[in-house]
Amino acid sequence: MAGQVEIKVANNILPMKRNQDDIWSRHITTDIRPVDYFFIIDGGKPLPDPRSQFQPLGVHGPSRHVDHSPFHWEDNGFTQKPLSSAVIYELHIGTFTPEGTFVGCINKLDYLKGLGITHIELMPVAEFSGERGWGYDGVDLFAPHHAYGGPNGLKRLINECHKKGIAVIIDVVYNHLGPEGNYLGQYGPYFTEKYKTPWGRAVNLDGPRSDRVRKFFIENAVMWFKHYHVDGLRLDACHSLYDMSALHFLEQLADTATRLETELDKGLVLIAETDLNDPVFVRSQDMYGYGLNAQWNDDFHHAVHSLLTGEKDGYYADFGKTSHLAGAMKDIYVYTGQYSKFRKKHHGRPLNTFDGSRFVVFSQNHDQVGNRAKGGRLCSLISIEKTKVAAALVLTSPFVPLLFQGEEWAASSPFLYFTSHRDPDLAGAVREGRKKEFTAFGWSPGDIPDPQDSESFRLSILRWDEQSTLPHAEILAWYKQLISLRNRFRSLSCGACDRITIDYSEERRWIHITRDEMNIFCNLSEAEQQLSTPKASGDLILTSTKKIRLHENELFMPGWSVVIIRYTL
Amino acid sequence: MAGQVEIKVANNILPMKRNQDDIWSRHITTDIRPVDYFFIIDGGKPLPDPRSQFQPLGVHGPSRHVDHSPFHWEDNGFTQKPLSSAVIYELHIGTFTPEGTFVGCINKLDYLKGLGITHIELMPVAEFSGERGWGYDGVDLFAPHHAYGGPNGLKRLINECHKKGIAVIIDVVYNHLGPEGNYLGQYGPYFTEKYKTPWGRAVNLDGPRSDRVRKFFIENAVMWFKHYHVDGLRLDACHSLYDMSALHFLEQLADTATRLETELDKGLVLIAETDLNDPVFVRSQDMYGYGLNAQWNDDFHHAVHSLLTGEKDGYYADFGKTSHLAGAMKDIYVYTGQYSKFRKKHHGRPLNTFDGSRFVVFSQNHDQVGNRAKGGRLCSLISIEKTKVAAALVLTSPFVPLLFQGEEWAASSPFLYFTSHRDPDLAGAVREGRKKEFTAFGWSPGDIPDPQDSESFRLSILRWDEQSTLPHAEILAWYKQLISLRNRFRSLSCGACDRITIDYSEERRWIHITRDEMNIFCNLSEAEQQLSTPKASGDLILTSTKKIRLHENELFMPGWSVVIIRYTL
Repeated sequence: MAGQVEIKVANNILPMKRNQDDIWSRHITTDIRPVDYFFIIDGGKPLPDPRSQFQPLGVHGPSRHVDHSPFHWEDNGFTQKPLSSAVIYELHIGTFTPEGTFVGCINKLDYLKGLGITHIELMPVAEFSGERGWGYDGVDLFAPHHAYGGPNGLKRLINECHKKGIAVIIDVVYNHLGPEGNYLGQYGPYFTEKYKTPWGRAVNLDGPRSDRVRKFFIENAVMWFKHYHVDGLRLDACHSLYDMSALHFLEQLADTATRLETELDKGLVLIAETDLNDPVFVRSQDMYGYGLNAQWNDDFHHAVHSLLTGEKDGYYADFGKTSHLAGAMKDIYVYTGQYSKFRKKHHGRPLNTFDGSRFVVFSQNHDQVGNRAKGGRLCSLISIEKTKVAAALVLTSPFVPLLFQGEEWAASSPFLYFTSHRDPDLAGAVREGRKKEFTAFGWSPGDIPDPQDSESFRLSILRWDEQSTLPHAEILAWYKQLISLRNRFRSLSCGACDRITIDYSEERRWIHITRDEMNIFCNLSEAEQQLSTPKASGDLILTSTKKIRLHENELFMPGWSVVIIRYTL
Repeated sequence: MAGQVEIKVANNILPMKRNQDDIWSRHITTDIRPVDYFFIIDGGKPLPDPRSQFQPLGVHGPSRHVDHSPFHWEDNGFTQKPLSSAVIYELHIGTFTPEGTFVGCINKLDYLKGLGITHIELMPVAEFSGERGWGYDGVDLFAPHHAYGGPNGLKRLINECHKKGIAVIIDVVYNHLGPEGNYLGQYGPYFTEKYKTPWGRAVNLDGPRSDRVRKFFIENAVMWFKHYHVDGLRLDACHSLYDMSALHFLEQLADTATRLETELDKGLVLIAETDLNDPVFVRSQDMYGYGLNAQWNDDFHHAVHSLLTGEKDGYYADFGKTSHLAGAMKDIYVYTGQYSKFRKKHHGRPLNTFDGSRFVVFSQNHDQVGNRAKGGRLCSLISIEKTKVAAALVLTSPFVPLLFQGEEWAASSPFLYFTSHRDPDLAGAVREGRKKEFTAFGWSPGDIPDPQDSESFRLSILRWDEQSTLPHAEILAWYKQLISLRNRFRSLSCGACDRITIDYSEERRWIHITRDEMNIFCNLSEAEQQLSTPKASGDLILTSTKKIRLHENELFMPGWSVVIIRYTL
């Protein structure tokens, strides 16, 4: 434990005082604006404040005091749409617009609104090392990234979103901190040696002195909700939040959000990323769950991706059949206890809830795209026809659909892995690690883009001008139609999976999903197929190609096509 | 993974064959009896079988094939008493009798029966390094220890127990393996680096290839139930069973036991040792718990021990008030979310079940006694009067009482920590570790008994001949009276805590526990006290001293005394 802590403001170094709870503080009055400061522990190197609200010069620089009160919020009365009627749009501030800033996004809100988006989800915005990065290496968790425009930029973006009726979810990483600029461990027992994560030391959520560690993260969530008017948090990699406490950290967080809903008089959502296929995350607290609002469901993605691409590497080894897609639609988790080849173990357990609004699905996201060697989007791997089928499966599913920036026009830009670490050893390790990862899959090292190269970032910036060209315009129109249908027809938005009926043929590769009066037929094969519809008198609501024909109850579908037919019930 | 596995029988080394599931096997016919064998992996040193049924020469020696079928069981129709009316007696085979063997125990069964014991609980019996040890260092988990008499000895003991109507619980350690003779890791991915236990590498319950690791332990449990007719398992240190799988290992184990109950047509119990104060262990699977039958409740022990001894070290720092004892009686967990000074964090959560039969309590056990520098039993720390109070609190509690061998006569022998590791480095480390642990508490190193010294073991052997001398005979009579009362009056055995009423005075240090018509009054102070009873017409059922007087509703109690009064309801 520290014997002495000082604060350095301008060139003054002033001693701080420890209270009985081992919290060091000091009241400071100064005329200097802005107030930039460091802490000095036991006479060491000046360190930024781990609760810094702003790091104008990056992770190693001084912390800047931020007064949240002057911001002029204009979003009074804004209420987010419930997840049951949400369409989420995941975006990365740095590459979403040419500006690469929070404020730059504001220009795109009308577009997103027009697309039918209800929520944007920002990839992590907390200060990470350098200017370019995905954000999962964040180290100053309370400080919106300086390169994105800092606290004020984020507030302006959220304010404008709310004015336009769009809610904002932020991706937060509570399972580890990034490798560079991570001074948190010097301030207290924030990390533990008891557990390991793939990305570094695990956070001490259940050991001695963990109360304040938990509080640190809980207060981080509270800050986003209170001071930034954020509507929801996406909680990164919850499978790496190791906590044997009787009250799990996520349950405590959910309790906090529930109390805050009353205080703020608005709905707040917590969405877990977890690959454990364990219902405990979304089960209500009445039923001994953590009571989160929703979780990402990777099984849905894997089922769709493997069917469309035929890929069998990594986790796709566990998927690839039409039955997997049917399982994802009906049972939500495809793996409910079966043996997983990828995991080399039995995996998951059945859900007892079939409330689709508790599961976020996607045909791609930052991870699925960016973790490919060349950041290839789904559309770069498959035909336009298949791209349309993927979109339809997501946007007519009974789950909460999430699109990844640019997906809606089959953007030509990749989403590469990019970093801008300053530490040369770390930069080298990241570069080599990436090469090693993909050469193991048969790639030649020279073909692997260098994450540290600014070109990897630059290439990943969306090219908005391509939207109006073919085939992008056609795909965009398709997405717009699908979202519009979903928003128009209650039967197409989130639903209870036990109300869905599913027919499929593994051999012929087609699937027919019935959602009340809406019937979605997909031909998942290269061959044209003739299918029988349940009734004769259906309306063709949407077809992915004009070649689809419906005659009485005979449906002619070319290879890789999808149609929505409506029957009067 | 091994490229070649051979079996060595007598002096023949024979190749084995791998099947598609990576299991190596070979059928062997031999006239040699007994069949002793080793396995040789990739031409290395001959190793014992990690599933060995018997290690006649210890952990490094050959494994002996055991045919379980010839044993002549005579316990057909035996049914264990339900935990709700159980009195458990924990014993350590090596020190319970002068013989130190399973068969040696048989001579004491009439005594235990006469005492009113329904279950004996054997400290771990699986093969550990050397001849002397507590058993928590077991490495051949399927092999009853050779020094105790091996498989046949254990079967004979259990057979005799069942013939006398006594059930047998075995303490099993599934969270780690001992440090010497632990060859398991060479046979497969049994351990993980993802988690740490205080005693060594954690068991791989949720990583790649963990299915068979789990099966290894599940089949171990099944073996005890099927081949040894064991009635229950006490699962050591469940707080160190790290498992993020959607189906927790303990739930899988409970499922297995439930299925086995049908197959064997008898009840089986699983009792967790856990200090997490988390209801999940004993909550039913209907309510998303693991569905174990019971758990040890250390809080009860700590509340009693600290009240009686005034000790404040270690976990006793969190206890010491009459209110803690009242909490343990009524809420079961004393820590249901409060801050624990010992743990330096908030701890536990409230129980939703108040079924006392799900909680095993004790005023001492092998750990509480043996983990003291000099293995001092509770009776060696406190007066006879207090000893009687401790016994009454345990044996009139609504929980499942557990006695530790010799407790019932305030045995004069300590229960020291003893080991007999062969590896000199390990032996030295254990010796020095023990010294270091206690010198930190102010002990002089010369005063700490050496665990490796056979004297530490010898001193721990019970002295049965002292039973008839004072004060032992008086204490024994007291225990017999209490157990007899508990077994006679339904209102004194396990109950629902929400039916208990408790009055106490923190200042005056008395407690009054009402269990239906039975009223237990304890004076927990040095001073004589006068208490008011709720009614005038009570029967004095049991008094710890003749000095207790009841006149109408005035109760006179000398310091540290206890009385049971019965009122007609």
